[in-house]
This record gives sequence, structure tokens and C-alpha cells, in this order.
Amino acid sequence: MAHGGNLATARARYGIPADGWIDLSTGINPHAYPLPDLPQALWTALPQADNTTALTEAAARAYGVPNPATLVPAPGTQALIQRLPRILGSDHAAVIGPTYGEYTPAWKAAGAVVTEASEIDAALDALSGAARPALILCNPNNPDGRTTDPARLIALADRLATAGGTLVVDEAFADVAPDISVGPWGSRPGLVVLRSFGKFFGLAGVRLGFAVCPPALAHEMSCDLGPWAVSGPALAVGRTALADDAWQTAMRVRLSQEAERLQTLLSQAGFKVVGGTPLYVLVQSVEAPAWHDRLARAGIWVRAFPERSELLRFGLPADRDGWHRLSATLGVSLPATAG
Amino acid sequence: MAHGGNLATARARYGIPADGWIDLSTGINPHAYPLPDLPQALWTALPQADNTTALTEAAARAYGVPNPATLVPAPGTQALIQRLPRILGSDHAAVIGPTYGEYTPAWKAAGAVVTEASEIDAALDALSGAARPALILCNPNNPDGRTTDPARLIALADRLATAGGTLVVDEAFADVAPDISVGPWGSRPGLVVLRSFGKFFGLAGVRLGFAVCPPALAHEMSCDLGPWAVSGPALAVGRTALADDAWQTAMRVRLSQEAERLQTLLSQAGFKVVGGTPLYVLVQSVEAPAWHDRLARAGIWVRAFPERSELLRFGLPADRDGWHRLSATLGVSLPATAG
Repeated sequence: MAHGGNLATARARYGIPADGWIDLSTGINPHAYPLPDLPQALWTALPQADNTTALTEAAARAYGVPNPATLVPAPGTQALIQRLPRILGSDHAAVIGPTYGEYTPAWKAAGAVVTEASEIDAALDALSGAARPALILCNPNNPDGRTTDPARLIALADRLATAGGTLVVDEAFADVAPDISVGPWGSRPGLVVLRSFGKFFGLAGVRLGFAVCPPALAHEMSCDLGPWAVSGPALAVGRTALADDAWQTAMRVRLSQEAERLQTLLSQAGFKVVGGTPLYVLVQSVEAPAWHDRLARAGIWVRAFPERSELLRFGLPADRDGWHRLSATLGVSLPATAG
Repeated sequence: MAHGGNLATARARYGIPADGWIDLSTGINPHAYPLPDLPQALWTALPQADNTTALTEAAARAYGVPNPATLVPAPGTQALIQRLPRILGSDHAAVIGPTYGEYTPAWKAAGAVVTEASEIDAALDALSGAARPALILCNPNNPDGRTTDPARLIALADRLATAGGTLVVDEAFADVAPDISVGPWGSRPGLVVLRSFGKFFGLAGVRLGFAVCPPALAHEMSCDLGPWAVSGPALAVGRTALADDAWQTAMRVRLSQEAERLQTLLSQAGFKVVGGTPLYVLVQSVEAPAWHDRLARAGIWVRAFPERSELLRFGLPADRDGWHRLSATLGVSLPATAG
């Protein structure tokens, strides 16, 4: 199970039909941004340059990035992860992990040596002497929610830049913690920031993500993606949602409250909470594999980690029914909502 | 003007607002496939593997491709054009042209020498001795509509395969001429076929295209695109439209009749019809630049070719108003419909 979110696997393994599942296996916000009206032309015409400009301007404002021209929109952050290794031309990459599983194979596919390290200092040691070293760090990290101070990351990017290298900061879950984003520091040599639209806005099917990087690299990435990379509907949905400050502010509060409730629930069920963000909770238990199976038999799909079988990651239930089924299956009473 | 379809350029140059234009600058069907209902989960969840399977099965049937596992879906054919050069690793590519303008820069960006040739034999001469030669041919070609016999293309692919090379057949406009498709011959070493969803189905904003290639190459291309490459809505729209045989059959008849009407209209206006398909008509006139300007002042945007100023390409008007404005601007009476 390389990723959460693939219910086809769950259905095949447990014989429960699609509508019988509560999917808590991802870190995607279950309270999706309401889809705006999408004029027919967004579907029929090629994606228009002025819609792309409007999207990057809205994204720059939402992410606090000073210059919209440093933002490259793509059909999902994953598309950028696929492209970055070759564009950066790194011969050695260090990934701070355990983390999101697609970095290591992407850099390996591009011919780089990949080191996985749990700490920045160890990663720097591994990269010492490399041509165009790349260091990849998710902030906050997935699945443990560990955060790194943005000032430290800026210093790290500057240090890597002097060695011709790059720090890649994946801020896929930073919408819920805007203070830790390095976006507001502006683009600089040696720094690439990745932002995901689908997780916080609950619209992962739209496929929209961004890279923030120095203008010359932004141009190179745009050329590599080619024209019309992002669909017409994604341009419009992204622009509207990213410009909606009130929704974003209220959602940050709501998700924090719900994650707190989820932590309480899981603690009461005997799990040790070992990490998380407002979009997911990571717990530890010697009985994690048994719980994963028991939850799945009840139609609740959570994220297991094959190489760390004592861990489970829970996303937020979407509604009352989800909360009740989860607490009933865990055999504990549902904590009151904080809000 | 590298492409049709960018009305922002037209608006800026002629000062006519967006809703004042009739866009005939593309070869996109103006009679779009009616959008099906799109369940919320297509937007909110990550694109699901079983939806991808259903899409490739529908596409294989529509395109007459024997094995769905040889089809790689992508967020637009352009995304495949961007990726193919590096995956094929060609040191020399020959493009049969003039044709669609994105092949030459894509192969050059990957470090290949690119030769543009008007005939296949000249292209083969240029490629002689190349390591992993690539020959790119659009069938039917854009903008002149020239077609190549599929049996000849299969023989050509086999010949290139023996030299470790590849024939890339772009069938972006083959939906209106299914008999010339090489898809039904099945995948084979040395052959990559590209199919575009957006043109014939009139849904270019959706971003959906396919490569048909041998299974090992298909796997490599899928890995290069990465997971969740195609959006949830695109998976569902594509599957529904590609499975709708009745719509496709009726649309082929309708487009042929309308293209015939457009040819008659343009001939009466003094243009020489020099090519086309049921989705566009290519005309020649010494007054082409003046006509391009005159049409644009009337809010009709057609495709000019900077390096061949005597040519104009007209797409089909969407409705009665479009036909009337076009005939009025050309100063001729509107021919009767054939249908």
C-alpha cells in the first residue's frame, strides 16, 4: 500500500462495496471547498493564458509569495515531483524521512543516488561533495507532522545554493500552518517550494499544485510541462478557492478543532498519539495491524505503513455518521466537539 | 502566434472584449459532447485506479485498439509530446511538416537534432545512421489535412524498429477518419500512436490524451507521468464520451457536412481551398494577411501562419450566428446546409 486514498484496494481485499467505506486513509480535507459555477468555455476551449495568470496571482496572495511570476502551476504537485529531478540535474538527493513515498523513486528514476536521513545534519553530511545536491524536506512532514523553522530552511537553502544545490520544501500540508511557510521569504537561488491545492481545499481530484522557484527555473519548469498543462476547470476552481480568505480562515479553525477531537478519541481507544497536523493524526500501538484489519472489516479505511507496522494514520471523518462509526468501532464514546 | 485558441492575444491586439469574438482559430469541434453529471467524489478524492481502467477500456474500444493495457492516459496529448523525446532517447528526429508546432521544440529540448521534411523518404534519408531515430507524422496532418495510408505507416514503423527507432503517429484529428488510424493494427515495437480527446469531442479544456505503445514502453510512460496524472472529472467525461458510439457516428456525419459548407463558403469568397479535415479548412490567398486583419476587426479569429503568410485555417462556426457573421464579413451569401 504505497499511498492512501485507493479504495479499490480496500474493496478488493475486504469485499465491501464502494459506498460502504469511510475513507480516512488520506490527509485530504473532507470538507471540500464548494465548487463554483464553471462556465462551459472552461471545458470546451483550451485553457486560456489570462485564466492561468489569474490563478497564479490568487495563489501568490494566498501563499504570501511576493512575485506571482515565481509560481508555476501544474496538474498536481505530483507532476512537479516527477519533473524536478531531471530539471535540477542532481547527482545525489537526500530525503528527510520517513515521509511522502514518491520522492525517492522520482530521484532514483532520474539517475540520482538517494539517501534517506531522519535529520538535516545527517542529510548534509551525506550530500557533502555532491554535484548539484538536492535536499528534500516536507514541512510539516507527512505522516508525523514534524515542523521545521522557516528561518532555518532559508539558511539551509542559501547554504545549498553556494554548492550549486537545491532545497526542495514540500508544503503540501502548510495551509493549516501558514506561519511555517517559506513562501513569504520570496524566491531565491537554491530554493524550490511545492504547494498542493487538493489537500486543504478537499479537491484532490482537480489536480492542481504549484512550484515556487527563481524566475529562470520557473520558466524552465513551465517549458518542461508544456502549454495547457492545467485544465480549464482547475484554473477556475483554484482561482476562486485561493482567493476566498474567509473560507480559508474559518477552515483552519475548524480543522484544528476536529483534529483535536480525533486525537482525544484515539487516545481514549488506547492509541499513543505520536504526530499529526490538523488534517491527520498519527498514532502508535503494538496492536496497529489488528486495528487496521478490524477497522477495515467495519468499512473504515485508514493508512498503514508496511515498514512501520506499529503506526496508523487517521484522516478526519467527514460527518456525524463518520465520527459515530469510528468511535463505535474503536469501542469508545465520542468526545464533545471543541467548537 | 504559435497556436490557435489564444483569444487573449486577439483581444489585446484588436481591443474587442472576450464575448465579442467568434473563435475559428482552432480545429476543436464547436459542438461539444454534453457534459455528464459529475459526482462530487470525482473532484474531492484522488483519481481512482478503477476509473482509469474504465477510461482506457472505453478508449481502446473507441479507437479500435486491441489491448487496453497498451493505452497510456495523460492530461492532454501535449503532456505526452513533452515526455516522449527523453523516454525514446532519440539523437535525431525527423518531423514531417509543416505540421503542429510543438514537436520540433520538444525534441530539441531533449537534445535531439531535428530535421523537418515534407516527405517520408526525405525524412528517412535524414535519419539514416541515427541512434534511436524518431520519425513524427500527423495523420491526418494539421493544417493541410494530408493523409497517409496506415499500411504504409505500419511498414515504416517496422523498418524504424529494426534500427532501434520509433515512428510517432499523431492521430489528433483521426476521429473524423477512423479508417486511417493505425490503432487497430495493435501495438508493436517502433510505433507510438497519440490520440487527443479534446478536439473531436469539443472539450479541449478537460486535458485528456492517450499514447498507444508496446506494454513495456506504456509502463515506462505511466511511471514517468506519475500517479494521478489525469483529473477525476477528465476520467469520467472521457469514459462516458468515448463509450457513446451513437454520438460519435452522428458527429462524424455532421462535421463532414459542415466542413463541406465551409469549403463552399470560402471558395465563393475567392479563397483557394488547399486542404483540411472535417474539423478545419485550409485556404490560400495572396490577400490572406489582409483577410486575417479584416476578419479580426469583425471579431472573427482565424489561424494565420507567420512563415506561410498566404495561408489561413478556418475552424467550424458553432452556430447560425457564427455562420452568418462569417459569410457577411466575407461578403458572400451563406451556402445551404448539406444535412
